Amino acid sequence: MTYTKEQYIDLINQALETYLYSVNDGQDIVVDAMRYSVRNGGKCVRPMLVLEFCRVCGGNVEDALPFACALEMIHTYSLIHDDLPCMDDDDMRRGKPSCHKQFGEAYALLAGDGLLTLAFETLTKAKNIDASDIVRAVQTLSERSGVSGMIGGQVIDLLSEDGEPDDALLRRIDRLKTGALIQASVRLGCIAAGVTDEKILKAADVYAQNIGLAFQIVDDILDVTSSTEALGKPVGSDEKNDKVTFVKLLGLEKCKALAEELTGNAVQALDDLPGDTKFLTDFAKALAVRKN
Amino acid sequence: MTYTKEQYIDLINQALETYLYSVNDGQDIVVDAMRYSVRNGGKCVRPMLVLEFCRVCGGNVEDALPFACALEMIHTYSLIHDDLPCMDDDDMRRGKPSCHKQFGEAYALLAGDGLLTLAFETLTKAKNIDASDIVRAVQTLSERSGVSGMIGGQVIDLLSEDGEPDDALLRRIDRLKTGALIQASVRLGCIAAGVTDEKILKAADVYAQNIGLAFQIVDDILDVTSSTEALGKPVGSDEKNDKVTFVKLLGLEKCKALAEELTGNAVQALDDLPGDTKFLTDFAKALAVRKN
Repeated sequence: MTYTKEQYIDLINQALETYLYSVNDGQDIVVDAMRYSVRNGGKCVRPMLVLEFCRVCGGNVEDALPFACALEMIHTYSLIHDDLPCMDDDDMRRGKPSCHKQFGEAYALLAGDGLLTLAFETLTKAKNIDASDIVRAVQTLSERSGVSGMIGGQVIDLLSEDGEPDDALLRRIDRLKTGALIQASVRLGCIAAGVTDEKILKAADVYAQNIGLAFQIVDDILDVTSSTEALGKPVGSDEKNDKVTFVKLLGLEKCKALAEELTGNAVQALDDLPGDTKFLTDFAKALAVRKN
Repeated sequence: MTYTKEQYIDLINQALETYLYSVNDGQDIVVDAMRYSVRNGGKCVRPMLVLEFCRVCGGNVEDALPFACALEMIHTYSLIHDDLPCMDDDDMRRGKPSCHKQFGEAYALLAGDGLLTLAFETLTKAKNIDASDIVRAVQTLSERSGVSGMIGGQVIDLLSEDGEPDDALLRRIDRLKTGALIQASVRLGCIAAGVTDEKILKAADVYAQNIGLAFQIVDDILDVTSSTEALGKPVGSDEKNDKVTFVKLLGLEKCKALAEELTGNAVQALDDLPGDTKFLTDFAKALAVRKN
């Protein structure tokens, strides 16, 4: 059985609603803030990758839903904390007020902490998956989202603001800040399917690395070519924040060519996967030409 | 074999140093901030409870070290985030500048996120513990530190600032804000020892509930009876922040009597544990008469 993007997004949203349970003990405002940000029209890139890699590798998509939701929770917490005044100080996210604008800073901070914690709780809800594979999932997700992964990328990004980053540094920031979580997504999909074959895991990693970098480059392109309306957040924010981007370093045309090349690499890596990879091919191509 | 407090603290600090690994990829400032707060002279109440419950229940103390360190990381992240300007805005912690005063707000936020994430990574480092028990540990720790536990308590505490909390509300806040993590500690000690006997788990819970509440009441007492020097943080901060405390609701003498009663309940619960409980008896009593 294959799934469309829309079917996946429905499955993911239904499952997120289950895991974002109400606590009804007086603290529901924080769950409201968590739900507000999680359900704020995200593209579900990461959870979809979990589900489709699980499917392509012969696993049961429904069994992988807790892993998929955990990825979306980690991604969302990182956005909530990134938007805070002491970080990027962004008032808007996906066309709506960012979490701290809607709920206040204290609850936004705690909503982020709550989602980060709930992500790990949700991993343990997986059914029909061996305990040892759940432990692998906890390990993979914590490593890739922690100081040697996503958080580390955030730190290097902050540190680089005062310097003159080059192409190599930008790639390193992206590999950690965006790439690490995309790698965690494909890896958790493989784990949910019980994959241990190194060749498959490697192919998944190569796919993730390439679409991760392409994703960031397209982000940089959209920041100069899109409109605030289409993007759901202010365009030109990189310029405003004096941020070094791939577009600034390489120019628009080279960036477009590079995004295309990376997408090609990603699609090629799919040859080593066992199942039908049409969805993942289309997915990589769609990310490269997306408008928001 | 039995251990003294000092021996436990040495073991815990050595293990923390191992798990707080350097990443050497340019983001070490965040690991420095994490280490600064973790190694800032904490009392190691929670990790010690993990180790001693493991020992009393017949487990191997060394095997429980990853669980113990995870508890200290969660506790420390919660202090870092609590001290931030958008929360309690505390400049001092244990007699030293709080994390954001030392490293700035952005790195303090990320150091907290990093410790929260590393706690779960560290759980997966446990050796000689069944994968299914590691999953139980992830589940217990995430539940008790998340929105139905510690974070929930923090939220109710924030919400109560504008109202007139009574004894029952204060107990509920404490049960979640402090109690949930102390419960997670004794539970993880039991899990590390492979305990499944409900009678033992129940006794551990009762011990934890009672010392958790006594701990908070003694905190409230010290805030009015201690000195800034002895406490390592400003006394009278509850008064300054117009915070309702057990001392305000019940008076100093009733609080002292209540702390004693709760300590007695905790000690009594130990009768249902299998091993020698002298350490845990002394531990509960020492918490009740502590000076900082």
